[in-house]
Amino acid sequence: MEPSQLFSMGTRTLTGMRSELRSDPITGRTVIIARDRSKRPHDFARATTLRSHASCPFCQGHESETPEPLAVYGDDGGGDWLVRVIPNKYPALSLDVGRRVRADEVEEGATERTVAGRGYGAHEVIVESPRHVTCFSQLDDAEALLTLRAYRDRLLAHGDNDSLRYAQIFKNTGAAGGASVGHVHSQLIATPFVPPEVAAELAGCRDHFQQHARCAFCDLLRRELGAAERVVASAEHFVALCPFAARFPFETWVIPRRHQANYAALTDAELAELGPLLRSLVAATIGASGQDAYNFLLHTAPFDTSCADHYHWHIELFPRMLEIAGFEWGTGCFINPMPPEPASQSLRSLMQSFRARKTS
Amino acid sequence: MEPSQLFSMGTRTLTGMRSELRSDPITGRTVIIARDRSKRPHDFARATTLRSHASCPFCQGHESETPEPLAVYGDDGGGDWLVRVIPNKYPALSLDVGRRVRADEVEEGATERTVAGRGYGAHEVIVESPRHVTCFSQLDDAEALLTLRAYRDRLLAHGDNDSLRYAQIFKNTGAAGGASVGHVHSQLIATPFVPPEVAAELAGCRDHFQQHARCAFCDLLRRELGAAERVVASAEHFVALCPFAARFPFETWVIPRRHQANYAALTDAELAELGPLLRSLVAATIGASGQDAYNFLLHTAPFDTSCADHYHWHIELFPRMLEIAGFEWGTGCFINPMPPEPASQSLRSLMQSFRARKTS
Repeated sequence: MEPSQLFSMGTRTLTGMRSELRSDPITGRTVIIARDRSKRPHDFARATTLRSHASCPFCQGHESETPEPLAVYGDDGGGDWLVRVIPNKYPALSLDVGRRVRADEVEEGATERTVAGRGYGAHEVIVESPRHVTCFSQLDDAEALLTLRAYRDRLLAHGDNDSLRYAQIFKNTGAAGGASVGHVHSQLIATPFVPPEVAAELAGCRDHFQQHARCAFCDLLRRELGAAERVVASAEHFVALCPFAARFPFETWVIPRRHQANYAALTDAELAELGPLLRSLVAATIGASGQDAYNFLLHTAPFDTSCADHYHWHIELFPRMLEIAGFEWGTGCFINPMPPEPASQSLRSLMQSFRARKTS
Repeated sequence: MEPSQLFSMGTRTLTGMRSELRSDPITGRTVIIARDRSKRPHDFARATTLRSHASCPFCQGHESETPEPLAVYGDDGGGDWLVRVIPNKYPALSLDVGRRVRADEVEEGATERTVAGRGYGAHEVIVESPRHVTCFSQLDDAEALLTLRAYRDRLLAHGDNDSLRYAQIFKNTGAAGGASVGHVHSQLIATPFVPPEVAAELAGCRDHFQQHARCAFCDLLRRELGAAERVVASAEHFVALCPFAARFPFETWVIPRRHQANYAALTDAELAELGPLLRSLVAATIGASGQDAYNFLLHTAPFDTSCADHYHWHIELFPRMLEIAGFEWGTGCFINPMPPEPASQSLRSLMQSFRARKTS
């Protein structure tokens, strides 16, 4: 039997739910079983090449190949656009399954967990340019600014839905970075629960706040700027640094200097600085690693406001140089052959040479 | 600057420690910073091809290219062997840094965590055949049996070292599976701490035991064998099944029927069944997924015996079909487009057809 036949066998067992949240009975680990995503082109074979311009659904002129946009930026009335937000055609979670029911509305015995089992949520794509470019570093000023503004707007839009608790914004670039479409884009998945990685950061920050009455990230910034061993860039509103316990070679975090739990609280002045900084950091990451596949992700506060004092949003960026393998899956520990101190030195030099080139 | 130059810059900053354990100040997440591994051939470029026989250090006749073996199996006195255990030439952790110091021996103020920072541990390679084959399914009966026996022996050997707490045995096969050497092998990394994924399983099992006075895995086996929706193979001593909250398409777990926390307690009768079962399960996984890259890992009890009642060792196996990307890194949640029910059906048919072919 061919693998493709097996998959259609799989989809025949549909129970009417498109996606389903399942918890592991041993660890409680949450998994999204997303049947629709097996229909995604380029998904099930490890993608080694990405689509070209001619067949690219995200390019200007191909708008009819994607669902109706949720938001369009940069359209001055002539139908042109710079950034578009569209529903993911192969969603991991969907708002269509009906809103998540509150615990007190549910029949006896049903827990919130089983209700969340329906796979309620949102999955969107932010197309960052009408041009067929593939990397965030290739955006122009307006595209980068509007992309980062779109993140803010989408967080605000989903934050109003009281059936959702969190939205993860992330970018997969390059086949090794998990992208199935080459055209520059990022994604948002909004979930009816706070995911474990975010919960772990929140717990660490809450502990720190209870002990020191200060934000853990504000303290980290102060310490790192003092030591200057791992700082990659230090701008007016943002600092980029390699974290002390970096999981990946050339991993960096971009942290706002001003204490703010929620990305949606970002001011326009901060937005205007973040675009160019992130673009040159991505370029430096590619230069230092020799890899054009990378991921970045935005960690921001869940939609409730209870962590405003002690959480601090930030972006985590890393090139995809190493395969994560048996040891990492088995233990949850990462082996990183590149200490963050020399990594930050390399990234810093590259960013400085970009800046020198720009001003010369 | 070329990436290779950056790496040598990196190794110039050596502080005398080859590896170092670091904890993230926000989440407490442990990372192994392993400078020596950046010297590993095939490591830093994403490997797309693996070495051939002629230059393979793991083949019979090339023994002098690897460190002195820690154990040799199948040598009848003539210098031939079937399975060899050797130290990893590019270790993530090392016993050479001096044994881990007990908290009461340490100068005031130093915590166990900072002591563990030295990167104490062990990293070994189990070469599973003298022949240049690449997949566990290609082992003959004796090689498979001796490999699984070597796992048992190495766990017993490290279990006697009271500076170590756990050993993770794992297999990376294929470039996409994280292998840098093609020749069939598995690895062991022994750590001075219980890693988070293992700790999460132990905590789940302890909770279940406290509530039900039964082992969570024993209960899971009973339930799964009853429902038979996700069972792939049911043998005398072992059951293979797709877990309810499978993270990956075609993920399977192999669980011993008899309650045992520690793999080292495996009897010879169980060993004899496990080899052929695991070999045909690996072959079925490759057949169903269309991928020859996979990982398997052994979750067994930490070296202390406190979890004997409530933990249950098992093997987790999965093909590497999808890139894990921004969403998974950001949230700790997996998106799996292949539900375990049809996956187990496909794997079951493939295993049955192997068996039919063998007996015909």
